[in-house]
Amino acid sequence: MTDFAATKSLFHIPEGIIYLDGNSLGMLPKTAANRAKEMIEKEWGEMLIRGWNEAKWMEQPERVGNLVARLIGAAPGTVVMGDTLSIKVYQALASALEMRPDRKVVVSDNGNFPTDLYMADGLIKSLDKGHVLKTPNPEDVESLINEDLAVLMLTQVDYRTGRMHDMKRITELAHAAGALVIWDLAHSAGAVPVDLAGCNADFAVGCTYKYLNGGPGAPAFIYVRPDHAKVARPALSGWLGHAAPFAFDPDYTPAPDVSRMRVGTPPVIQMTVLEEAMKAWDGIEMSDIRARSIELCEQFIAGVEASCPMLELASPRDAERRGSQVSFKFDQGYAVMQALIARGVIGDFRAPDVIRFGFTPLYIDNADVDGAVKILAEIMEAKAWDKPEFHKRNAVT
Amino acid sequence: MTDFAATKSLFHIPEGIIYLDGNSLGMLPKTAANRAKEMIEKEWGEMLIRGWNEAKWMEQPERVGNLVARLIGAAPGTVVMGDTLSIKVYQALASALEMRPDRKVVVSDNGNFPTDLYMADGLIKSLDKGHVLKTPNPEDVESLINEDLAVLMLTQVDYRTGRMHDMKRITELAHAAGALVIWDLAHSAGAVPVDLAGCNADFAVGCTYKYLNGGPGAPAFIYVRPDHAKVARPALSGWLGHAAPFAFDPDYTPAPDVSRMRVGTPPVIQMTVLEEAMKAWDGIEMSDIRARSIELCEQFIAGVEASCPMLELASPRDAERRGSQVSFKFDQGYAVMQALIARGVIGDFRAPDVIRFGFTPLYIDNADVDGAVKILAEIMEAKAWDKPEFHKRNAVT
Repeated sequence: MTDFAATKSLFHIPEGIIYLDGNSLGMLPKTAANRAKEMIEKEWGEMLIRGWNEAKWMEQPERVGNLVARLIGAAPGTVVMGDTLSIKVYQALASALEMRPDRKVVVSDNGNFPTDLYMADGLIKSLDKGHVLKTPNPEDVESLINEDLAVLMLTQVDYRTGRMHDMKRITELAHAAGALVIWDLAHSAGAVPVDLAGCNADFAVGCTYKYLNGGPGAPAFIYVRPDHAKVARPALSGWLGHAAPFAFDPDYTPAPDVSRMRVGTPPVIQMTVLEEAMKAWDGIEMSDIRARSIELCEQFIAGVEASCPMLELASPRDAERRGSQVSFKFDQGYAVMQALIARGVIGDFRAPDVIRFGFTPLYIDNADVDGAVKILAEIMEAKAWDKPEFHKRNAVT
Repeated sequence: MTDFAATKSLFHIPEGIIYLDGNSLGMLPKTAANRAKEMIEKEWGEMLIRGWNEAKWMEQPERVGNLVARLIGAAPGTVVMGDTLSIKVYQALASALEMRPDRKVVVSDNGNFPTDLYMADGLIKSLDKGHVLKTPNPEDVESLINEDLAVLMLTQVDYRTGRMHDMKRITELAHAAGALVIWDLAHSAGAVPVDLAGCNADFAVGCTYKYLNGGPGAPAFIYVRPDHAKVARPALSGWLGHAAPFAFDPDYTPAPDVSRMRVGTPPVIQMTVLEEAMKAWDGIEMSDIRARSIELCEQFIAGVEASCPMLELASPRDAERRGSQVSFKFDQGYAVMQALIARGVIGDFRAPDVIRFGFTPLYIDNADVDGAVKILAEIMEAKAWDKPEFHKRNAVT
């Protein structure tokens, strides 16, 4: 059983803060800053260009990919790091569409994070081959799985509500109809158990700055099923996805595995911080994380519903159908969240009316949940949203 | 006049090293490691998600873009940072091809860095509209500028030889033929004066880990001519290129300027290190850099030609046609470079037979050049390439 007091001690917790936004940006592992400084001074500063060999920077995207792979049910050698989640979505969809040339329908859902839909739209416009992107309500996705479907592209856990798709069932249905499936694990990796290999998923992508605590702008990951990884054509055919990048061959030959999804020079400093952050996951089983996450979420829901009758639960009540976050609806949600932040309880707001709280077992405990409930109840009781200062909009809300 | 002793003092110079590879990975600015540590601890650690507003992470790609813009003859607000150079090449070419829908020819040259050609090839395969990528010898590019040409995509300074295209002349010729031009400034930004606005260039891209010293994997940049930036459709239509990313609008509306070329969440740690590194350029005029670069290159050529008769100059002899590097050909070039590195003189090797030396005026001086010439001469005199240890291949060569 995981010792969550021990994992909490690995993170820097700012004085007076209850941080329920690790599903947006994870907290700082205490050793990350010194590791960054050390890498910059000893590797970049001293080794200079030799760092690519001597400090093994070149292999880092695969090395860190293996650390992520363990948490998402993927075999070693099937996940590679790099770029941003948006780019990885594009890569997966571009490859998948070429594998189903006779089909023109892409299905996602209207709860998918906008960038996934924007990237798909951009790709479809570039291809100009009559593809159509359909975005039904999340609960209606299955009704669109049929022989026209080329690719099903879903974020497993809805960023607004925490509603979770049944990955195994949906993947099976799509495969039975001859389609491919791309799973976006942005709110899954490090949050809920994922079994990509067991589900036979075709592609998966995700980010590492949420539950994996890689820091702002940490690199994304992509998983490609091993049989696809041998044949999927990389649309973004960058030199580091080449089978032999340093041959400087005029022709592009992709690497024989998921490394073909590498594109350009990896962000070594950012990748090093992520690699350091991944140490917090050493020996952690996702089943422990899940049990603890459910406990914390249930405690929060019960507490809020008992003390804040004006807030309406926007997340599934059934814990099995919910990721590691809890959302409530309230028409003054923006101001309520600003009031919470002013009191040190940090969650976030998602337009038009959702206040969202992420529960990250590595560093959130029962006392945090109690504290957050108490402050939220006080704000609701005091109708704090009436104060004009809580309506001032930030650039990033 | 720039005080180059003062700029040299801003960088960490490892003991016993003469570093002539700043055209591959720039040296470490002394303040970068502490700035990274400070940003990680005080911004990520303390502000957490609030850093996007409070530490102005969200505006950083444009803010740093303005620092780069000054060095490449671009107006403020026309350059934005992010992703890798490979991705930026793809973005520029995808937008440019859509702006010339009736033309099917893309011209580059066979001295372009492979990733540019690979990315173009990948895009052309995805589009599947009959585009052709032509890669003549660099000196034959002009002969392919005609009414069939959609986009001319060139790296201004050849990564192997340092040969420099005449940006103004070639851009004018291409425009006269109705084509668009994309300039890759990988070996130009911070190396030679560039006047994008004066040349009326359509798009430009580049990296920041070479002459701009942003560190391994530092973010790339893209310039889009202001009139194009209002209309060019971003193929990689990520949420942070949206006119209002935090509206979470289901439909994609691009930002009204170069910010539409932003894609996903920017690498804040890496961007912060780059922003710190850019301080070395405060008040520096590229004309001073150019004069000093020519002085150093000429000194090196004269010294090597006087003492190493077996080495054949692979760079243009005319300084006006050469970037800030000098290359020599030698069939045992790989082993010679390994022998040099073993003696502390770091340049690099480019297959099949080029040894390459970059001259970065911010931290390389005449004594470094003399020292490098002396050691190279000793290696050539001793036929050091006969030793087997210098033939061992590294992963990154």
